Amino acid sequence: MKRTAFFISDGTGITAETLGQSLLAQFETINFTKLTRPYVDSVEKARAIVQQINSAAEKDGARPIIFDTIVNQEIRDTLAESNGFMIDIFSTFLAPLEHELTSHSSYSVGKSHSIGHNSNYMERIEAVNFALDNDDGARTHYYDKADLILVGVSRCGKTPTCLYMAMQYGIRAANYPLTEEDMERLQLPTALKAYKNKLFGLTIDPDRLAAIRHERKPNSRYASFAQCEFEVREVENLFRRENIAHINSTHFSVEEISAKILVEKGVERRLK
Amino acid sequence: MKRTAFFISDGTGITAETLGQSLLAQFETINFTKLTRPYVDSVEKARAIVQQINSAAEKDGARPIIFDTIVNQEIRDTLAESNGFMIDIFSTFLAPLEHELTSHSSYSVGKSHSIGHNSNYMERIEAVNFALDNDDGARTHYYDKADLILVGVSRCGKTPTCLYMAMQYGIRAANYPLTEEDMERLQLPTALKAYKNKLFGLTIDPDRLAAIRHERKPNSRYASFAQCEFEVREVENLFRRENIAHINSTHFSVEEISAKILVEKGVERRLK
Repeated sequence: MKRTAFFISDGTGITAETLGQSLLAQFETINFTKLTRPYVDSVEKARAIVQQINSAAEKDGARPIIFDTIVNQEIRDTLAESNGFMIDIFSTFLAPLEHELTSHSSYSVGKSHSIGHNSNYMERIEAVNFALDNDDGARTHYYDKADLILVGVSRCGKTPTCLYMAMQYGIRAANYPLTEEDMERLQLPTALKAYKNKLFGLTIDPDRLAAIRHERKPNSRYASFAQCEFEVREVENLFRRENIAHINSTHFSVEEISAKILVEKGVERRLK
Repeated sequence: MKRTAFFISDGTGITAETLGQSLLAQFETINFTKLTRPYVDSVEKARAIVQQINSAAEKDGARPIIFDTIVNQEIRDTLAESNGFMIDIFSTFLAPLEHELTSHSSYSVGKSHSIGHNSNYMERIEAVNFALDNDDGARTHYYDKADLILVGVSRCGKTPTCLYMAMQYGIRAANYPLTEEDMERLQLPTALKAYKNKLFGLTIDPDRLAAIRHERKPNSRYASFAQCEFEVREVENLFRRENIAHINSTHFSVEEISAKILVEKGVERRLK
C-alpha cells in the first residue's frame, strides 16, 4: 500500500517532520512517500501546496496525510480545502496548553527553530568547533574543557557522534582513537588518564567495522576482518579492565548512541 | 512565572523534545525548566520519573507539563499518576491515523530514531564524511559528487551548515572559502566555475563576523571590523555579479539556513 505524507510548516518544517516520521514509523506495512514543505507562510504558497496534495491523492488513489505546524488560521484553512487528511499538530495542543498555563500562545510563526528562541547560538557553534578541533586526537590539551571524550578504534563512529551531540545539544565532545600501539601497551594513553571520568567507549561489530574501513582503504590490512576483530577485542578488554562505560554502536543510530551516552554519563544538555 | 517541562520517551526523546520545545516557544512569558528523560522503558523507571515530576510540582507550586511519546500503556498509566499535566503525543494521533490508514499501529517502542527505521544509515555517515573531507576547500576534485557547494568568507557559518545538512538530511555539501585573493581577482575561483549550479552563498553582518573571528584570532587584521566589512562587501558583490543565490546567516539558526537553502536550490532530502 502506498500513501504520500506531507510535512508542512511556516518555519523549517523540523517539528512537523520529526513528529510525522515518528508516527508513520508505527505503520510498517505502508510505503510512504514523504515530502517536506517548509516556509509555507502565505495563502498563495499554501494554494500551490494544495495542488501538490491533490495530485498525490489522485496518483495514490488515497488521501495524503498532512502533518502541519502552521500557526496562521487563513493558511491552515487553505490547506484544509485540499483532499488530504490533516493532523493539525499545533491547534490540537495549543488550546489545552493555554488553559493549563493560563496564558495565551503568541501564535507567532516559525518560532521553534529560530535563532531568537535558541539563545545559545554561539554556544552551539562553539561546540561544533570544539568537536572539529578535538577530533581524532588532533589535540589533547583542551580536554579540561570537554564534557565528554569518546574513545574507540578508528572508524567506529566517534566523529559523527561527537558532531551530533555538539549540534543537537551543545555538548563539547572530543574523541581519541585507540590505535594498535595503545593496545599493545594494554593501557590507556597518557593523555586520557587524567580525564577518566569523561571517557566513554564506542565499540562495533568487527564485520561492520571491516565494511566501513574497506570504503576508505579497500583491501588494506587496516580493513581486514582479522585486524578489525583483533582491535575490537583488545579495545573491549581495555574498556572492561579500566572500567570505562561503553556501547556497541552497530545497531544504533547516531541519535540513539548520543542519547544513551548522555543518560549513562549523566551529562545534561547545554541547549535548552 | 516558572514551570518545569518534562520530555519523556521510551526511545531517544527527540520527538517529545522537538514537539515540546516548539509548543513551549509559543509561551514567551513563562520561564520553563526543560528536562529530557529518554529510555523510560519500564514501570520502575517511570516511577523514578514520577518522583521527579512531583518534586518539581512542589518546588514550582504548579504542575509540570509532560510531553511523552511512550507507547506502552502500563508505563503511561504510571506517569499519569504523577502530579503533572500530560500532553500525550502518540495516543492523541495514533488512533485517528489508524482509522485513516485502516491499518494497526505496531505500537513498538523507540521506533522513530532507530537505525532500523532509518535504512539510510550508511548514506548519512557518508554525507558527514563528505562534509568533513570537502570542508574549507580542502579538496575540490569530488565536487561532481556534491549536492551543494557553500561559498562565503572565512567563518561565516559554512561548516556547521554543511554538517547539519549531512547529519539531518544526508545531503552531500562541500564548502569553499572565498579569500581575499579571490576577491581581488573579482571572479569565481576556477575550481568552482564548472559547478556554478551547485553554488550557494552565505553572507553575514560584518560586526558579527568580526566577533566570531576575534574568538579565533584575537586582535588580528583578519578579525578587524574594516577587514570583515571589506570581505563581506566584496563577496556580496561577487554573488550578485555571478548571480549566485545567497542568504545572510546573521539572524538565522543552522536549521533555518539549511531549510532555506534546500528550498531555494530545490534539493530534496536524501534521508526519508
